[in-house]
Amino acid sequence: MSKTYRRIVLASRPTGWVMPENFRLETLPIPSPGPNEVLVRNHYLSLDPYMRGRMNEGKSYAQPQEIGATMIGATVGEVVASHHRAFTVGNHVRGMLGWSEFGVVNGKALERIDTRKIPMSAYLGIVGMPGMAAWYGYHKILAPKAGETLVVSAASGAVGSVVGQLAKLGGLRAVGIAGGPEKCRYVTDELGFDACVDYRGAKDAEALTQALRIAAPKGVDAHFENVGGDALNAVMNLLNPFARVAICGLISDYNNERGVVPHSAIRNPAVFLVARIKMQGFIVSDHLELWPQGLTDLGALLVAGKLKFRETIAENLARAPEAFIGLLRGRNVGKQIVKLV
Amino acid sequence: MSKTYRRIVLASRPTGWVMPENFRLETLPIPSPGPNEVLVRNHYLSLDPYMRGRMNEGKSYAQPQEIGATMIGATVGEVVASHHRAFTVGNHVRGMLGWSEFGVVNGKALERIDTRKIPMSAYLGIVGMPGMAAWYGYHKILAPKAGETLVVSAASGAVGSVVGQLAKLGGLRAVGIAGGPEKCRYVTDELGFDACVDYRGAKDAEALTQALRIAAPKGVDAHFENVGGDALNAVMNLLNPFARVAICGLISDYNNERGVVPHSAIRNPAVFLVARIKMQGFIVSDHLELWPQGLTDLGALLVAGKLKFRETIAENLARAPEAFIGLLRGRNVGKQIVKLV
Repeated sequence: MSKTYRRIVLASRPTGWVMPENFRLETLPIPSPGPNEVLVRNHYLSLDPYMRGRMNEGKSYAQPQEIGATMIGATVGEVVASHHRAFTVGNHVRGMLGWSEFGVVNGKALERIDTRKIPMSAYLGIVGMPGMAAWYGYHKILAPKAGETLVVSAASGAVGSVVGQLAKLGGLRAVGIAGGPEKCRYVTDELGFDACVDYRGAKDAEALTQALRIAAPKGVDAHFENVGGDALNAVMNLLNPFARVAICGLISDYNNERGVVPHSAIRNPAVFLVARIKMQGFIVSDHLELWPQGLTDLGALLVAGKLKFRETIAENLARAPEAFIGLLRGRNVGKQIVKLV
Repeated sequence: MSKTYRRIVLASRPTGWVMPENFRLETLPIPSPGPNEVLVRNHYLSLDPYMRGRMNEGKSYAQPQEIGATMIGATVGEVVASHHRAFTVGNHVRGMLGWSEFGVVNGKALERIDTRKIPMSAYLGIVGMPGMAAWYGYHKILAPKAGETLVVSAASGAVGSVVGQLAKLGGLRAVGIAGGPEKCRYVTDELGFDACVDYRGAKDAEALTQALRIAAPKGVDAHFENVGGDALNAVMNLLNPFARVAICGLISDYNNERGVVPHSAIRNPAVFLVARIKMQGFIVSDHLELWPQGLTDLGALLVAGKLKFRETIAENLARAPEAFIGLLRGRNVGKQIVKLV
């Protein structure tokens, strides 16, 4: 085994769009675990939109990423050495070891995963944080009923693809919004949504509203927002009385420079009154007490063949920055993963 | 008794601000009640912001007011003739008899009111729809806890004044937003709010945010919105994690022409995620099942001297249009009433 490993640190904070030079690849000697610590070789790294927020200075719901520190990130991998009684060499584990080929961490911060029926990488996606985000927003905020219509943006993504499939399992009409005909075909033909609107095919917000009106002829009762901006404004035009909107992400806004009125401004707040809507933002890590229930549900549906997922896999840690920029630009289909081994 | 009465009808729909010529005063013979009907002499007419919405053409949560029909409005008055077994001459009643000195209506649409301890006009305000709006939004949407900070806009108005007083009774810090030093003095000195920010004294949204930051040094946990626009955007900058926002009215927006991006656009939706907020619009007539409970609560607090209210009274039906325009421009303090007798 090599005596060194590679990691990626935050080299500088982006202004606007993330650039490759905001990251730096470093090579370091593999550390030894101390008391209660475990050395893990990471097999897969998860790339997620929330990481963009951590790259900024200043207040968000979490501390910003420090300059020079390993980029934050969820990982799955294999125990290589253990000084913690709950883990032995060869165990498969999930943790937050960051953009890094190896990591040493207290065993308390790791979790065993069962890869006999579910592939290891799925613990970063459909039975990981993105799946939980879909499950929480769907069940705990939207709480939709059979026969209602649900819309989800970024419908081909790691979160949106689960939301729409849960909606179909729940007896709803599921409408996706996605970028480009390929993603839309995936959403309808493979994931089973009733309709998908290609926002890139709509020349403006009005055209997007018209396309959605056709896809959701009875209006929209529940909306799961991952993107913001025109997508959200278009859906708001179609909300039925007592509709619910769950705000999981606003990726269209993450690369705006500060101080500018965001593209994602909610242009017609009168809808709050006219349709008596509820709009609620959430962060799934606020609700860790529900993860066992949610992940058990999702795992059972996955093993039963009732949920499908896709991954976009970048090979080699060195390509993580490029893959992350691609994620922010919507180039991935399904869960964006970096394969490290 | 006179054989004629006067009413005000919608003469034309406003574009932008309401004008006196949008109304027409008419004189008609007093009708006789048919089977099950009651003839009521209205003593007081309520003027409320929602009436502005009814003057527009097109979809809202209610049908638009028809041209040539009596303007909609809540009234309290006295039974003059009754063909309904639940009412006798002299009873005091509340109904929706509109901008009119007399009205005939099926007894089913009237409600007896007890004016022994509570003045008749209060049934249009603090123990009427505005009081219920405050009660519903406060208890059912904001559901705040002692020690939290609540902000309410239009704090000197019929709804806002009740919201802030409920907050003080609940052990919260209550901060009002109102237009002008006279209203602010009323809010703090008479109603007992902890602080009041004069939005007319702030030169822009940034200055308003700064003034609110001083008034709410621990941030804002619950916000009751009656106005929208800069007020809402300023408060959104100060929301604490898991804050709740109840949207009861957006009066700053009601006189915008259609198709223009409203002044009231929510400029920073990232707050939904960063603070995981819930924002919910409501219309109190959706929740009629709660009115007995709410109005009993409010009536008991009023009789016990724990709630105060003020009225701005216009004398004579002919002055209702002018008083309504004044209401939309924020000229009233407390509940805007028209005295008809």
